[in-house]
Amino acid sequence: MPNLQIRMANAIRALSMDAVQQANSGHPGMPMGMADIAVGLWNEHLKHNPTDPHWIDRDRFVLSNGHGSMLLYSLLHLSGYDLPIAELKNFRQLHSKTPGHPEYGITPGVETTTGPLGQGVSNAVGMALAEKLLAEEFNRPGLNIIDHYTYVFLGDGCLMEGISHEVCALAGTLKLNKLIALWDDNGISIDGKVVSWFNEDTPKRFEAYHWNVIRNVDGHDAEAVSAEIAKAKKSDKPTLICCKTSIGKGSPNMAGSDKVHGSPLGAAEIAETRVALNWPYAPFEVPKDIYDAWDFKKRGQAAEHEWNKEFQKYKTKFPELASELQRRMLGDLSKDFSSTLNAYLKTCQSKAETIATRKASQNAIEALAPALPEFIGGSADLTGSNLTNWSSCKPVRGDQWGNHINYGVREFGMSAIMNGIALHGGYIPFGGTFLTFSDYSRNAIRMAALMKLRSIFVFTHDSIGLGEDGPTHQSVEHVASLRLIPNLMVWRPCDTTESAVAWGSAIERKNGPSALIFSRQNCPFVSRNAQQIKDIARGGYVLRDPQSGKINAAIIATGSEIALALQTAERLEKESAGKIGIRVVSMPSTTVFDQQDAAYKAKVLPAKIPRIAIEAGVSDFWWKYDCAAVHGVDTFGESAPAGQLYEYFGLTADQIAKTVKKCIAQK
Amino acid sequence: MPNLQIRMANAIRALSMDAVQQANSGHPGMPMGMADIAVGLWNEHLKHNPTDPHWIDRDRFVLSNGHGSMLLYSLLHLSGYDLPIAELKNFRQLHSKTPGHPEYGITPGVETTTGPLGQGVSNAVGMALAEKLLAEEFNRPGLNIIDHYTYVFLGDGCLMEGISHEVCALAGTLKLNKLIALWDDNGISIDGKVVSWFNEDTPKRFEAYHWNVIRNVDGHDAEAVSAEIAKAKKSDKPTLICCKTSIGKGSPNMAGSDKVHGSPLGAAEIAETRVALNWPYAPFEVPKDIYDAWDFKKRGQAAEHEWNKEFQKYKTKFPELASELQRRMLGDLSKDFSSTLNAYLKTCQSKAETIATRKASQNAIEALAPALPEFIGGSADLTGSNLTNWSSCKPVRGDQWGNHINYGVREFGMSAIMNGIALHGGYIPFGGTFLTFSDYSRNAIRMAALMKLRSIFVFTHDSIGLGEDGPTHQSVEHVASLRLIPNLMVWRPCDTTESAVAWGSAIERKNGPSALIFSRQNCPFVSRNAQQIKDIARGGYVLRDPQSGKINAAIIATGSEIALALQTAERLEKESAGKIGIRVVSMPSTTVFDQQDAAYKAKVLPAKIPRIAIEAGVSDFWWKYDCAAVHGVDTFGESAPAGQLYEYFGLTADQIAKTVKKCIAQK
Repeated sequence: MPNLQIRMANAIRALSMDAVQQANSGHPGMPMGMADIAVGLWNEHLKHNPTDPHWIDRDRFVLSNGHGSMLLYSLLHLSGYDLPIAELKNFRQLHSKTPGHPEYGITPGVETTTGPLGQGVSNAVGMALAEKLLAEEFNRPGLNIIDHYTYVFLGDGCLMEGISHEVCALAGTLKLNKLIALWDDNGISIDGKVVSWFNEDTPKRFEAYHWNVIRNVDGHDAEAVSAEIAKAKKSDKPTLICCKTSIGKGSPNMAGSDKVHGSPLGAAEIAETRVALNWPYAPFEVPKDIYDAWDFKKRGQAAEHEWNKEFQKYKTKFPELASELQRRMLGDLSKDFSSTLNAYLKTCQSKAETIATRKASQNAIEALAPALPEFIGGSADLTGSNLTNWSSCKPVRGDQWGNHINYGVREFGMSAIMNGIALHGGYIPFGGTFLTFSDYSRNAIRMAALMKLRSIFVFTHDSIGLGEDGPTHQSVEHVASLRLIPNLMVWRPCDTTESAVAWGSAIERKNGPSALIFSRQNCPFVSRNAQQIKDIARGGYVLRDPQSGKINAAIIATGSEIALALQTAERLEKESAGKIGIRVVSMPSTTVFDQQDAAYKAKVLPAKIPRIAIEAGVSDFWWKYDCAAVHGVDTFGESAPAGQLYEYFGLTADQIAKTVKKCIAQK
Repeated sequence: MPNLQIRMANAIRALSMDAVQQANSGHPGMPMGMADIAVGLWNEHLKHNPTDPHWIDRDRFVLSNGHGSMLLYSLLHLSGYDLPIAELKNFRQLHSKTPGHPEYGITPGVETTTGPLGQGVSNAVGMALAEKLLAEEFNRPGLNIIDHYTYVFLGDGCLMEGISHEVCALAGTLKLNKLIALWDDNGISIDGKVVSWFNEDTPKRFEAYHWNVIRNVDGHDAEAVSAEIAKAKKSDKPTLICCKTSIGKGSPNMAGSDKVHGSPLGAAEIAETRVALNWPYAPFEVPKDIYDAWDFKKRGQAAEHEWNKEFQKYKTKFPELASELQRRMLGDLSKDFSSTLNAYLKTCQSKAETIATRKASQNAIEALAPALPEFIGGSADLTGSNLTNWSSCKPVRGDQWGNHINYGVREFGMSAIMNGIALHGGYIPFGGTFLTFSDYSRNAIRMAALMKLRSIFVFTHDSIGLGEDGPTHQSVEHVASLRLIPNLMVWRPCDTTESAVAWGSAIERKNGPSALIFSRQNCPFVSRNAQQIKDIARGGYVLRDPQSGKINAAIIATGSEIALALQTAERLEKESAGKIGIRVVSMPSTTVFDQQDAAYKAKVLPAKIPRIAIEAGVSDFWWKYDCAAVHGVDTFGESAPAGQLYEYFGLTADQIAKTVKKCIAQK
């Protein structure tokens, strides 16, 4: 009979091949190949408590090659999480706790949703960074209450993806020495033997990133893997442990080939595999001695108990710090937050500044930061353009705590790291780039929305208003495209007040990400009454009504086009000597407006009054509001000063007034 | 007085700082810093003819750090391209030939549009790959009619971007030895000194990619740079030449700092720079001896003349090959193409197969490939899933010509390399991944649309129909998002016939990219008459009308939902005993349909007949067609078998029939 460690690994192999077979769908190759590595990590090193998946100082484990989800489900089930065998039998079925790829929030113990390759390791970098910063911020001599590792499994696919370069290079620069990555070096990807498209010298590459690289580890020797993890834990750099494995290990006829990657082995091969593994148990049957060997509940509880004792000492000595840490790990805002926001909104009113909304954004950050010690900003090498920094922020460095990250020119990496920070807890991350480059990070934004994370994406230099940099940098389709991502709240505020409300809403939104869109150019301040200021948070509201009270048309606009809408309204009313009355609806967030009740929506946009939408972006989106006309930009932009571009694209009060009159006449 | 080479470089410095000053916008630092490198390359090595920017065997030059556009404009102007000084004075103005970032198709000599960092070097990899493959395909012993280099300038920003990892790793694997990259190692990015966020050992990283790395070159010594380029040209690997430079070189008070990166120097500093450079000329004035030294017209004409002589020999000896090469470099299709397509369409009709549209796509590729020797396919490690290969294709390898590229798990890199192949000419590239991962490559798709390139993006495993892989892989918002990119034609065909027409349209579309969306699951074949088959190419057409002729409602659907639309129509007519008549409009390409004349559109979608759209994706998009109702999927998907998901999301004939009846009643 194989030794216990091998039998523990075989339990994973059997559960994985059986679950995939039962679902007739899934990826058995990776779980079978990485089973021994999992034994080496989970049974020997991983600090966790299956009975309390939310213990704040647990080690974080990320399965970056998320298609091998049965590896993780097997580990969670065997080690004692609330994931009964019935769930494994229900692999990949509707509303099971075992979806096709691991999903955060669905399965206890799953730390992040993975599948889109390269993003798991990026989340892990974010988690390791959050751990480091939180430790620097909260630990006190002799009381290391934040002190855990972040482990990540990854495969060739993650290493080929560009994002792995971005985040691993940054992890090296920031010396994230408690990040330990285990590479499943099996030489196989979906198209076959990787050597024809992936022959880089990965260890050398990671040495170039200033990682601690451990080469040539036998990935089927759990003891060897465990010994190398022990060394890695002592490194002053992040570690890559290069584990040679055979994909689908255990399958006599398919191991080591791409055939075992993404489809069931089939009944015959499964039978042969059982024999080869000396695993005489029925599908989904695990013998008691193996369950006992895997069971981590007691060990986990003991570990957490030890930590609780330490935390009690900490709490006694530093009661305020302790409650602050608990608050932040729960994601609750400080009691000062809403009063700080309200005070700042009053300042916006009294200052009545005409500034670029990116500057308005910075002013909001500046005002809110004192009430938000959990704020952690950053920019993809555009700090002075995105204006994501504030007067008291400190840059994050390898050897220095900080709360503003120079991410470098790494938009996708930044966004996925932000997601990792949000997943870890303790911080609310935001990060900036030009709106056009939201394209680079789009799938990480999507992942934040899918995972319901409070990541705040700051996008400045919106649309043609950025002027001379031209069409590569002018984001005509991006606002509309972002609005299409489910569960993402998109804000395009028009002045200092709306910018402040957008920030407030993003920060208060605990269960999902927000994208805040800001202008490069100045936007005039707009006066509002108290009710209007309150209604901004509803996403859309009446910004202006005719004095006559009679409304002939409603102009809906957002952001930099609000000024144009107001001009148009005034011109039309003046020209017609008050015969025409125009409502202007400011719609800084369509996504939030769409969530309002029908009565409120009907009050803002009454039926039968023709609606004209204005936005310096593609017009298609706006037809959902039953508009009579839309003024947008349906081609790429041009390189020229912003003022000329507004003229060139017909975004002038003159043109819009003509359209409005036509719509009224057609009514 | 400085030596001639330095004065040639100073001409670039002066033109760049003066143009940026005049525009009051732009990036002087990079052109001033890379001016000497440019002298070393352009005056000593670059094979080009300013009087014929389209010479097919010219060296390709790519400015990957495109914000330094004034470097390229200066070079084009000085070396004799049709870019008069008036255009430089008009830098960044509306409809000038000198937009903010270099734009392909606007300025003679600009080989690709750059600015979004990392994509220029990726295009260069595509160009170098196209050159290699074309040479392997067309050169004959002693007649190397395709034999040129691809040079690329890049900065720290490009090297930080993930895409640079993807494409440079692949360039090493494919041994693209005629690719020579010159790195502007100035230690500065927008946020300041890069060492705090970019401290990787870049030479070592590129050695890990199997590049020839030349370290420690003085980037202000044009002779030294030239000598290293001479060595690089003999390498059997791609070369990275690491050039140490000072950003803004020449500016006495700002060189070497981020202050000189992205804004004008200001009049005072410009005056001081003139003195420091010993450049006593007025703005935009270049002395005659410097113009003479830069003038490459005669040298270029002589080079092309030599090549023409060789090509005449080639033509005499291989007349068919010669005319084939010329045809392909012009981007014209073979005379067999349309007959092959038409014959295949007939086969679709007679076979009447119910298969997944990804399989229909592969069948179309298989049928068309014999008439398309310029076809070059590929997949981001999903060949067997995307079905991008065909029976006679050969894999591209470092030492083997091929026409199907295993790009590895590199979606963004693949797409930008495809753009580079299309820019080079001689091939029509297509490449596949799962539709969800269009997010990863989105900005390269955008760049193809902006540059009007014939890149064909194949996206399979559309929406919830992919089933068990779950929401990370289910692309609910992607089709609609892609439709918002200007000049991108998006196709979502419903069966074998529509898939064939989509492929035909994409191939025949010379002036822009297409995205072809295919299903994982089977889609029933639909019978059509000859007119209907013809009308598919119009993007939308009447697929079915009631026998009665009386139409009460029109269901608009695409792709996998066409079957559902047809079922619903039949059920409603049967239930109502013919009292209700339903038209079904198939809309495989909204983007193409939108380009049709108003009369055709009104014929397909008559006014006053209520329209109901069905698509397994976000509903927002469809309101532009003035729908009475839309059945879509407005949340993320779920992990479950596809059939169950269609039920779960209400995409059933039963649900849709109810909606249609309601819409008819409300009319």
